Amino acid sequence: MTKSSSNVMALAPPAPNKRETVCIFGTGDFGRALAHKLLQCGYPVVFGSRGSQQPSSVVPKDAEVLSHAEAAQKAAIIIIAIQRQHYNFLTSLAEVLRGKVLVDVSNNLKINQYPESNAEYLAQLVPGARVVKAFNTVSAWALQSGTLDASRQVFVCGDDTEAKKMVMDLVRALGLTPLDQGSLLAAQEIENYPLQLFPMWRFPVFLSLGLTMFFFIYSVALTVIHPYVYQKKDFSFFIAITIPNQVCPVMALTLLGLVYLPGILAAILQLCRGTKYRRFPDWLDKWMLCRKQLGLVALAFASVHVLYTLVMPIRSFVNWRTSNRIVSQALNNKTEPLDNTRAWISDSYLALGILGFFFFALLGITSLPSVSNSVNWREFRFVQSKLGYLTLVLCTAHTLVYGGKWFLVPSSYKWYLPPIYMLSLIVPCAVLVVKFVLVFPCLDKPLTQIRQGWERNPQHSK
Amino acid sequence: MTKSSSNVMALAPPAPNKRETVCIFGTGDFGRALAHKLLQCGYPVVFGSRGSQQPSSVVPKDAEVLSHAEAAQKAAIIIIAIQRQHYNFLTSLAEVLRGKVLVDVSNNLKINQYPESNAEYLAQLVPGARVVKAFNTVSAWALQSGTLDASRQVFVCGDDTEAKKMVMDLVRALGLTPLDQGSLLAAQEIENYPLQLFPMWRFPVFLSLGLTMFFFIYSVALTVIHPYVYQKKDFSFFIAITIPNQVCPVMALTLLGLVYLPGILAAILQLCRGTKYRRFPDWLDKWMLCRKQLGLVALAFASVHVLYTLVMPIRSFVNWRTSNRIVSQALNNKTEPLDNTRAWISDSYLALGILGFFFFALLGITSLPSVSNSVNWREFRFVQSKLGYLTLVLCTAHTLVYGGKWFLVPSSYKWYLPPIYMLSLIVPCAVLVVKFVLVFPCLDKPLTQIRQGWERNPQHSK
Amino acid sequence: MTKSSSNVMALAPPAPNKRETVCIFGTGDFGRALAHKLLQCGYPVVFGSRGSQQPSSVVPKDAEVLSHAEAAQKAAIIIIAIQRQHYNFLTSLAEVLRGKVLVDVSNNLKINQYPESNAEYLAQLVPGARVVKAFNTVSAWALQSGTLDASRQVFVCGDDTEAKKMVMDLVRALGLTPLDQGSLLAAQEIENYPLQLFPMWRFPVFLSLGLTMFFFIYSVALTVIHPYVYQKKDFSFFIAITIPNQVCPVMALTLLGLVYLPGILAAILQLCRGTKYRRFPDWLDKWMLCRKQLGLVALAFASVHVLYTLVMPIRSFVNWRTSNRIVSQALNNKTEPLDNTRAWISDSYLALGILGFFFFALLGITSLPSVSNSVNWREFRFVQSKLGYLTLVLCTAHTLVYGGKWFLVPSSYKWYLPPIYMLSLIVPCAVLVVKFVLVFPCLDKPLTQIRQGWERNPQHSK
Repeated sequence: MTKSSSNVMALAPPAPNKRETVCIFGTGDFGRALAHKLLQCGYPVVFGSRGSQQPSSVVPKDAEVLSHAEAAQKAAIIIIAIQRQHYNFLTSLAEVLRGKVLVDVSNNLKINQYPESNAEYLAQLVPGARVVKAFNTVSAWALQSGTLDASRQVFVCGDDTEAKKMVMDLVRALGLTPLDQGSLLAAQEIENYPLQLFPMWRFPVFLSLGLTMFFFIYSVALTVIHPYVYQKKDFSFFIAITIPNQVCPVMALTLLGLVYLPGILAAILQLCRGTKYRRFPDWLDKWMLCRKQLGLVALAFASVHVLYTLVMPIRSFVNWRTSNRIVSQALNNKTEPLDNTRAWISDSYLALGILGFFFFALLGITSLPSVSNSVNWREFRFVQSKLGYLTLVLCTAHTLVYGGKWFLVPSSYKWYLPPIYMLSLIVPCAVLVVKFVLVFPCLDKPLTQIRQGWERNPQHSK
Repeated sequence: MTKSSSNVMALAPPAPNKRETVCIFGTGDFGRALAHKLLQCGYPVVFGSRGSQQPSSVVPKDAEVLSHAEAAQKAAIIIIAIQRQHYNFLTSLAEVLRGKVLVDVSNNLKINQYPESNAEYLAQLVPGARVVKAFNTVSAWALQSGTLDASRQVFVCGDDTEAKKMVMDLVRALGLTPLDQGSLLAAQEIENYPLQLFPMWRFPVFLSLGLTMFFFIYSVALTVIHPYVYQKKDFSFFIAITIPNQVCPVMALTLLGLVYLPGILAAILQLCRGTKYRRFPDWLDKWMLCRKQLGLVALAFASVHVLYTLVMPIRSFVNWRTSNRIVSQALNNKTEPLDNTRAWISDSYLALGILGFFFFALLGITSLPSVSNSVNWREFRFVQSKLGYLTLVLCTAHTLVYGGKWFLVPSSYKWYLPPIYMLSLIVPCAVLVVKFVLVFPCLDKPLTQIRQGWERNPQHSK
Repeated sequence: MTKSSSNVMALAPPAPNKRETVCIFGTGDFGRALAHKLLQCGYPVVFGSRGSQQPSSVVPKDAEVLSHAEAAQKAAIIIIAIQRQHYNFLTSLAEVLRGKVLVDVSNNLKINQYPESNAEYLAQLVPGARVVKAFNTVSAWALQSGTLDASRQVFVCGDDTEAKKMVMDLVRALGLTPLDQGSLLAAQEIENYPLQLFPMWRFPVFLSLGLTMFFFIYSVALTVIHPYVYQKKDFSFFIAITIPNQVCPVMALTLLGLVYLPGILAAILQLCRGTKYRRFPDWLDKWMLCRKQLGLVALAFASVHVLYTLVMPIRSFVNWRTSNRIVSQALNNKTEPLDNTRAWISDSYLALGILGFFFFALLGITSLPSVSNSVNWREFRFVQSKLGYLTLVLCTAHTLVYGGKWFLVPSSYKWYLPPIYMLSLIVPCAVLVVKFVLVFPCLDKPLTQIRQGWERNPQHSK
């Protein structure tokens, strides 16, 4: 549905009045790019310009260039492709612009740069016109090159339904998807939208970078530096796979714990306060809002951990170690009997890890926008809370079974420091223990009541 | 696009009349949560209540509390946040509510609890009002905590376009996404929607749980109990990985066969009946409708099978077995020559499995809502039928090549029972054979004609 | 939200006038299928037919059959389920059809078969009617069987807002999702839509098939035929895994390079021309438009490469080779010392490959429609350009480290031909070198200016 039906134009008889003339104020980059695209789709374009002669050299050759007033009279839709600080001159055109559809395409340089949105400012300047906000999420470069994968969506808002409809039809004709965002009040948001750069991801990404750095250095110290200092062995190549494969699972488990920790804290807070109608502290609010992102970063670490683990038998070092072990067995003329306990432990933690990762990946798939949009609230809660805790339990058990046997062995505490996987167990174990306590009826019942609106001291909310 | 533009309110001059007062009838949990959210977004809120004094203690302190009639007069939009069984008193307010927009937010406890939807019932009670159904898919807890990942979508329906538009603008102002569902006739469906818990997944999940149970016990009997009884060997740790890795591929292949079986049955039925205009039996209809879910469960089993297979070289048991084999070779002073046939078989079934899984995963990706929405019917058919059968052929061949050499070896039939992978071949082989027969022109031609509307005995449809 | 609320009909009192009669012209396959579905959803259906008696034998028994004029009078919505070449007779019904909503459901056999769309042609034939295009993306078979996964979406367009709204409500009542595509000008596109079969995928798929063929034969020659000719060794089973696992990474890397090559060429072209307002050559335009598809094909090859690599330790041939190596070590009574350089190289290229694949998969996930719709242009650019080049660098480094040591060894050039992985490095290395040059300020600054609309010789664009 992307190609414009401009080829219709060549043959259909009433072509001239099929596509209405569009007027563009401003011959800057975006104005010209939009004009190119409009001409390509069969719309006559007229530019409004201060001096009617000078800018004609840069506008597309099929477009007319007139003075602002003349150009505005030729079209029902006028696209204001100039910067907000130059809007003032429009007040002098108020008479000509009466009843016209003014499309504000402007963007700012900073989020919430002005008290009111550019579109609302424009509506105040030219009260007789019907202002519609649109096209600001589309880049000139994308319009020009046709590579519109990202921003095929054009948010449209405006107070006049008819004007909005005209603009939405224009958007569709250019092969884009208009999204009605309601009245002009939404303009502020629409103007802020293209300025964002993953605002929800900032905290999870920086947190995990910091933690990764810490765990990496910790792991290098214990795995590379310690044997070098005490045994003069050079394991520097561990930095490529062995150490990342220690850090990744630790990060995955810790972050997964941090996804469920704020829910636990919120429950405790609500139990203490006896009401759900008091706001949480700001940091808890923010933490709760980026749980999805934290979980996805954790899933990324888990995926890398899986890959690092599965390439192990291909590694030159592992092959060398295996060969040496077998050769020395052969030279000693003995075959080992099967150690049933070891087989149990090895298979158990692998199986737990696989199942944990499987459910983790399932959670990840459910958080894809199109999937989470197609489930209702009850189903989403079921997946995220039931499946989420199952994942946490499986992954914690995976780590416990993997490292459990070394908990009480003093030699695993090099430099009196616990191995790295023990650190990763702190958060998830704490979460699971508190969650287990909260499931008891004596705590679960009041909590459920509070979440249904019951208040211990109703007068407090006054 | 999620943050509400409440910060606009602080500065824009005509703020007071920018956001219109919203009236809420009912001070229950949902009413209060909605009031909180509305106040947060800059809407003045007035509660309508039976006694105007009593409930003021629990409502947000910025909201006014008045009698029902007084409150209704203050606002154009009245949100009816009370339960259906208490709607009756609204008839006495008919005069005040004339022309007002009544928003029904109610939900029921059971699917299709009442003959008509709550919103239609409300419209019958207060004929002069303009009833709109909305907000019922949003939970109070989600509104309160801002964690609206799942149900950002608000289904809206109503007979009055203007009223619907007002409610949709309100929905957008709260940072939610309104979805126009047409006239009030859609209310029944919208009210049923939040009560569902994966209705399409129930049969596939229970079927696969039952089958998994059966195959698990079957596999334990042959792989653990049989060697214990006859050879006194304890392979109990096989329960962790070896047996799941036998059950998972068997389940995946069987379920994949069950995805394509109903299509085959439908074709046979249509050929016998000579028309496509007679309904299929109910069970076949239901089966056909949950094919996608069956396929996704099969893909889940296949994914777990892949992971279980890839960890094999890391397993302690496998390492022990390999070491022993090599050590005994070394002790016997001989090296084996390369067995070309074995290498061919091993590489073939691995390659077939990898390609089968790859196409299976591709099918899974195509069934993501956003992907399947962006392909047309012709493309969807191409992927699901051509690629689907290719997957089935590859996975069946993978199993046949894997186990083929043991088909005629009596020792593989322990307790006279066939190994588990042979069972998994029954359904897919049956499907492929019948499909192969149906491809012959003498059957394919009449079937195509029937599917294009041709009938063998037209009078039957009368 | 898929079940129709037909069960409401049984109980709600004012049922008769709740669902309005729908008239269908044409008793062909689609007409009958639609009638079935409409009746199922509680709509009375009346067929308009040439002879009012004859076709009654094939239409559903609950539907009435009348002459065209009589049938049209009974309903506000008339569905024109006949082929375009038979539209002519409608001109004689112009009087009866005045003000009626005519729904054009027709499709053509070829893209752009007629100069104007069928719906526009219909609107010209019956100027008094309100023509709406709809339902053409839904297949009769899908309507009948209820398996509507693919095409739940119904594109609707029309010049009359009220008529469009009525049709959209009808669409919703049938459990489908209407998508407003604007005015009747969009009909051409909507009619072309269901005729497409992955138009954007054709070039990437054929290109990769051709390249795969070439690399496969090249690899068979060097890996199977060469040792057979010179050493009489039969490695024919390499065709199953070893050779695909050489071809897949080579294809992945080459295609990934081809994704970024057109961007580089476009930049050079813009620098030479000194303007962004001149169109690129057609081949470059087309190439740029299918970069996403090229990238996804590359990702598919990379995924298969990962699976092929990870099954290596399970392969019978690899086990045999390992055993033999260890046994001969044991027989020679010696254990090898750890080769630190080899360990470094092996771990490095594995780690680079894992990270490269991880970022590649991330790019793939971001290109899912629902994910790319939820990011803005700035975020999309960040991911696709920054993350994309990171992936290219990692994957190129992976190949370089893997094969680097053999670059200067003459024995790796069998038949004077370079090993296959060297061929795969040509495109990505060329891209990275040119990109590195373009990053220098002396080239980056003018390029940025040009992309912001600056022109070196403005008069050229006249």
